[in-house]
Amino acid sequence: MSIGVDASAKGAADVPEIGVGMLGYAFMGKAHANGYRTLSYMAWPPPLRPRLVSIAGRDEAAVSEAAQRYGFERSVTDWRDLVSDPEVQLFDNGGPNSLHAGPTIAAAEAGKHVLCEKPLGRTADESYEMWQRVTATGVRHMTAFNYRFVPAVRLARQMLEAGELGDVLHFRGRYLQEWGTTTADAWRFHKEEAGSGALGDLGAHVIDLARYLVGEIAAVSATTRTFMEGREVDDAFEAVVEFDAQAVGTIEATRFAAGRKNAFSWEINGTKGSLSFDLERLNELQHSEGTKGFRTILVSEAEHPFWQWWWPAGHIIGWEHTFVHEIHHLLAAIAGDGEVAPHGATFEDGYRAAEVCDAIVRASDSGTRQAVQYR
Amino acid sequence: MSIGVDASAKGAADVPEIGVGMLGYAFMGKAHANGYRTLSYMAWPPPLRPRLVSIAGRDEAAVSEAAQRYGFERSVTDWRDLVSDPEVQLFDNGGPNSLHAGPTIAAAEAGKHVLCEKPLGRTADESYEMWQRVTATGVRHMTAFNYRFVPAVRLARQMLEAGELGDVLHFRGRYLQEWGTTTADAWRFHKEEAGSGALGDLGAHVIDLARYLVGEIAAVSATTRTFMEGREVDDAFEAVVEFDAQAVGTIEATRFAAGRKNAFSWEINGTKGSLSFDLERLNELQHSEGTKGFRTILVSEAEHPFWQWWWPAGHIIGWEHTFVHEIHHLLAAIAGDGEVAPHGATFEDGYRAAEVCDAIVRASDSGTRQAVQYR
Amino acid sequence: MSIGVDASAKGAADVPEIGVGMLGYAFMGKAHANGYRTLSYMAWPPPLRPRLVSIAGRDEAAVSEAAQRYGFERSVTDWRDLVSDPEVQLFDNGGPNSLHAGPTIAAAEAGKHVLCEKPLGRTADESYEMWQRVTATGVRHMTAFNYRFVPAVRLARQMLEAGELGDVLHFRGRYLQEWGTTTADAWRFHKEEAGSGALGDLGAHVIDLARYLVGEIAAVSATTRTFMEGREVDDAFEAVVEFDAQAVGTIEATRFAAGRKNAFSWEINGTKGSLSFDLERLNELQHSEGTKGFRTILVSEAEHPFWQWWWPAGHIIGWEHTFVHEIHHLLAAIAGDGEVAPHGATFEDGYRAAEVCDAIVRASDSGTRQAVQYR
Amino acid sequence: MSIGVDASAKGAADVPEIGVGMLGYAFMGKAHANGYRTLSYMAWPPPLRPRLVSIAGRDEAAVSEAAQRYGFERSVTDWRDLVSDPEVQLFDNGGPNSLHAGPTIAAAEAGKHVLCEKPLGRTADESYEMWQRVTATGVRHMTAFNYRFVPAVRLARQMLEAGELGDVLHFRGRYLQEWGTTTADAWRFHKEEAGSGALGDLGAHVIDLARYLVGEIAAVSATTRTFMEGREVDDAFEAVVEFDAQAVGTIEATRFAAGRKNAFSWEINGTKGSLSFDLERLNELQHSEGTKGFRTILVSEAEHPFWQWWWPAGHIIGWEHTFVHEIHHLLAAIAGDGEVAPHGATFEDGYRAAEVCDAIVRASDSGTRQAVQYR
Repeated sequence: MSIGVDASAKGAADVPEIGVGMLGYAFMGKAHANGYRTLSYMAWPPPLRPRLVSIAGRDEAAVSEAAQRYGFERSVTDWRDLVSDPEVQLFDNGGPNSLHAGPTIAAAEAGKHVLCEKPLGRTADESYEMWQRVTATGVRHMTAFNYRFVPAVRLARQMLEAGELGDVLHFRGRYLQEWGTTTADAWRFHKEEAGSGALGDLGAHVIDLARYLVGEIAAVSATTRTFMEGREVDDAFEAVVEFDAQAVGTIEATRFAAGRKNAFSWEINGTKGSLSFDLERLNELQHSEGTKGFRTILVSEAEHPFWQWWWPAGHIIGWEHTFVHEIHHLLAAIAGDGEVAPHGATFEDGYRAAEVCDAIVRASDSGTRQAVQYR
Repeated sequence: MSIGVDASAKGAADVPEIGVGMLGYAFMGKAHANGYRTLSYMAWPPPLRPRLVSIAGRDEAAVSEAAQRYGFERSVTDWRDLVSDPEVQLFDNGGPNSLHAGPTIAAAEAGKHVLCEKPLGRTADESYEMWQRVTATGVRHMTAFNYRFVPAVRLARQMLEAGELGDVLHFRGRYLQEWGTTTADAWRFHKEEAGSGALGDLGAHVIDLARYLVGEIAAVSATTRTFMEGREVDDAFEAVVEFDAQAVGTIEATRFAAGRKNAFSWEINGTKGSLSFDLERLNELQHSEGTKGFRTILVSEAEHPFWQWWWPAGHIIGWEHTFVHEIHHLLAAIAGDGEVAPHGATFEDGYRAAEVCDAIVRASDSGTRQAVQYR
Repeated sequence: MSIGVDASAKGAADVPEIGVGMLGYAFMGKAHANGYRTLSYMAWPPPLRPRLVSIAGRDEAAVSEAAQRYGFERSVTDWRDLVSDPEVQLFDNGGPNSLHAGPTIAAAEAGKHVLCEKPLGRTADESYEMWQRVTATGVRHMTAFNYRFVPAVRLARQMLEAGELGDVLHFRGRYLQEWGTTTADAWRFHKEEAGSGALGDLGAHVIDLARYLVGEIAAVSATTRTFMEGREVDDAFEAVVEFDAQAVGTIEATRFAAGRKNAFSWEINGTKGSLSFDLERLNELQHSEGTKGFRTILVSEAEHPFWQWWWPAGHIIGWEHTFVHEIHHLLAAIAGDGEVAPHGATFEDGYRAAEVCDAIVRASDSGTRQAVQYR
Repeated sequence: MSIGVDASAKGAADVPEIGVGMLGYAFMGKAHANGYRTLSYMAWPPPLRPRLVSIAGRDEAAVSEAAQRYGFERSVTDWRDLVSDPEVQLFDNGGPNSLHAGPTIAAAEAGKHVLCEKPLGRTADESYEMWQRVTATGVRHMTAFNYRFVPAVRLARQMLEAGELGDVLHFRGRYLQEWGTTTADAWRFHKEEAGSGALGDLGAHVIDLARYLVGEIAAVSATTRTFMEGREVDDAFEAVVEFDAQAVGTIEATRFAAGRKNAFSWEINGTKGSLSFDLERLNELQHSEGTKGFRTILVSEAEHPFWQWWWPAGHIIGWEHTFVHEIHHLLAAIAGDGEVAPHGATFEDGYRAAEVCDAIVRASDSGTRQAVQYR
């Protein structure tokens, strides 16, 4: 159980710095900032040494406090100052959805690598434009679908790639939260700022993992629903999905599932076995080898994904560590050690998730099954 | 923990007999026979004393053996002999789906009460005719949706009726089995005999509980799928459902979920709390009071439904006991002590489930949302 | 999923009857009566056909009602009438503990096979005398440790015998109930009638399974405790156990575990893996093959113990069915088809469990580790 | 769900620094280093700003690498250099057990606050001396029983203090790991360096939580066992415990429970309800209010202990965060904002746990119940 330090590893002194500029200091800003700070010593040596250069937010006092708290060298109240900052090499966008496209494109066009929170854009159109324009610049780009970086999810992908599940026949994914009854008026409830509700906020995660684990979605049938009067965005949606290959299943999300705090659960049934997962117990992966019944794999052992950075078996990690893995992955790609795809979500992945979201809205509105078509 | 015998109860000697004629001696015949035998002393005194008069099956040796085993006085190889048997007052149809309509209608028209396995008919049309013609005779009729008689399901209904869950917003029901990979050629795989596959066999149960617990289904969007080449019926289906009231959700069933033996699970989210259930742990009901988190109610205490007949708390019952409760309920109705509806499923309920099944098939075939319309 | 009837099997007409006389009509009487009735057609053909001849109890009205309910031909108020009844070949004793020794010995000495509820006697001395005197008569004898007949427990035994767990290092068994707070004055709370409290009522089950699954217990250290003032028997006990082989562990029972209805749970750790079980989910066995993590085996498939009598996979059975298996086992032994031991508990097993119980009391009283010594 | 930054809070610029010197850079060194780094921005503003001054270890290359990795300003190969370092105000001892007493006492006598990993000393004698000599210096002292700082454990304590469980009747605690089969020769297996095996390493945690949640232990009966030939320390122990108040229970630990990675689980039964916990699911607390059955509290909501520093509900934290809470608690005490006791374990608590450990060894060796007596 000793956690040795490999003294022969490339010394951190040789690791170049990368300057980070961050837009947003609330929930996602906090999570990303923690990611940069933690990866710097947990994943040792880090691929690049993040230097927290500047953080942007509209409230001067608050953003100044955030800079001090998270260790940014300075704070600004206009994101354009991040874009023009020559010490920023990576632009990290954790702002509201309405501020995803403009700043991110501007940053990329200023030559900065970009990491953008999900959903990428508020629509497939906006997401497509982000992907196209950012790709044209040649910078590295990543959509922050952090649940690809849950060790159990990566392990599931490895098992699927290795053929341990056989051909996939079913995917059932649902993301259930309960706080939709709040009467607070947040940006997440406004169409202009958020684009959509449970669909883009929660459903996009489910769609991304469906694509990451099973493959492209060919068609959807769906219903969206707003339970709270006067709310501009959907509170819930229900969808039947058909994959390019033979698999069929359901994708759902809601903010009205009392008792479910953050229950992103999915199940995959294949010809050789099944997998099951629940984010509220994110250290566990359930696996039925054939029809033997489900075994709980506590994904926390030396041979498990990402686990070389952490603790002895059974000493579980938390939700926030997905960002450590995610940002590490991006920095490694920037450092030239691998690509963002396929394990990280690129802006193409962000766009593709948006196409599925849009198809769900069209299916709900029209009452007809919608093919998902990518440009 | 003493299990007293209430000596003041109406003596069994005063309880009239009812002659039972049964069609089918396989899986369902065995389950129903056990139900008649067990209720006679467990639910004491029984509302009527079942007398197992005659059992019908095509294989003379096998049906004769079954009669001996389960205690039927005689066996016949033509179900018409049950219909014409003056000692049969209750016709119990556990035969293949293709033998549901004809014999059941004939029995009812001969003045016998009828209990028919689900799905009632192979189509909504056939089910409608059964309902209409049987209703016209005035006999008691029941569709054997036995999962209404799981104590945890009845408790859920009581809680819903009492308003403990508030208004229902979501229903998610799925019935997962794994034996679809069998290459055996059973009647369940033939369209003529079975009508449909996972839809009528498993999905009908989900639809019935959705109706029993939440209410009528207004519209469905769906996809059905046959995975095994050459198989005539669906192996799986996926559906989005919209209820008459505001609730939305999904209904699914498959015979291709490796590791799931008999996993009929459902979840209900209401404005005041949630319920969750899994048939593989049928003695448990999960309840979140508001957003407090899920509590496991081991439905096995004196105050729980049906429990007056059984054991001290925690001494759990099995799947088969749903039939004890179901048949007891029917006998009580026949004896004049209550109605089949609403806790038992009548032929109208059987017909309504069939309309939803048909709408799912139409939605899958047409790619358009289908309203469920009852005649 | 068809449940065939094997028409070639020995016809039930050829199966001889066995006359059963039962002492006690409360909780255990009900459970045993159900066992006789159910095995007669579920385990087909039965080894013997139980004929419910006579039932004894002190309250004439109640026992008469019980006879009518369970189908006994007659009832008596003096158990001696069972002993002298020439039509009784099997004496089934489900009376209070103080009525175990006398009537059972008398019945055996009258040439009747004997099935006695646990604990066998109120002390090791009484149990030893029962074993010795009954053995001397040559009749079949069985102590009703019904949990040996849970399919998951039998499967565990098979796996242990096959070496799948390697050498056993630990056994942890606990039986938790919650009704000890009752202020009712039952025979279970009186030393003269019950012998002991949680120890004989619940602990004896744990001890028996420890012996059945792991082996003989060599020594115990223990503490017993009575929480309710004025109660004559223990409400709980805690014990450290050392087995003849290298395993060590704990055995506990209490009637004061709020929230635990009937939680008899045990865990075994061996050099090659572990097993875990909880009676509240008696259809499940948890198995860790090596250190792979625990898999839930839903013990309900064709290849599982006792399952040839029951239902398709996943259609779970209840607590009461342990008695069906247990009584079937005894009848098979009486019919000459096998022995009571090792899968059934003989009176020797009943005596040995009593020796362990007595050692626990001595250890608690003396504060010193007690060797368990068998006569 | 917004995570505001309270701009009105005392600015971090006003927070004084505290210089930290650490002994040990392996498992515990890593965990503590992460604690200092994370608390500095998660618990905002921190009570003191940890400055990682110096780290000591015997292997010069390795400790130098560790200093670079975790951000210590310098590294040394002799712990005496930490003791004599005027910039070190807090001495954090995560070295092997044999290096707990000497360096910790020296540091305290040099006027440094001390945090020492558990077990405090290798024996009660050594622990007592540490407590006495360190107390005499007037510095703050803390034994690193980090599981007191699991949010679910603190919540349990709050519920117990508020009387929600009534009077405690039972405590059952066990700490199960599986890596004892390793043939590696680590300091943990040597008596001189470790003091004991599973007892001090795992059992001490159980004992500490038993004391924290229930109260002082009055007496123990026990058996220890070494399974691996040639190993100097115990691989497992089993103990019956009696508390000063009426509660009785068991405490166990083993390194030979295949399939259990880090399974520290405990259950408390009180007159008004029960609590249950498992470290492998450390974000969950099971609570039975009275006999209602167990509810899963996902301890991750705004009103839960420590949660003001973290994420929205359901975004679970990991094992390592217990150190963030623990070190925060110590720094707050050093800063004059509260005491180490009762929520943090002082050296007195470390000593008391050692007395219980010693009593377990004596009980095992002598075969007699041992009173736990504190000096």
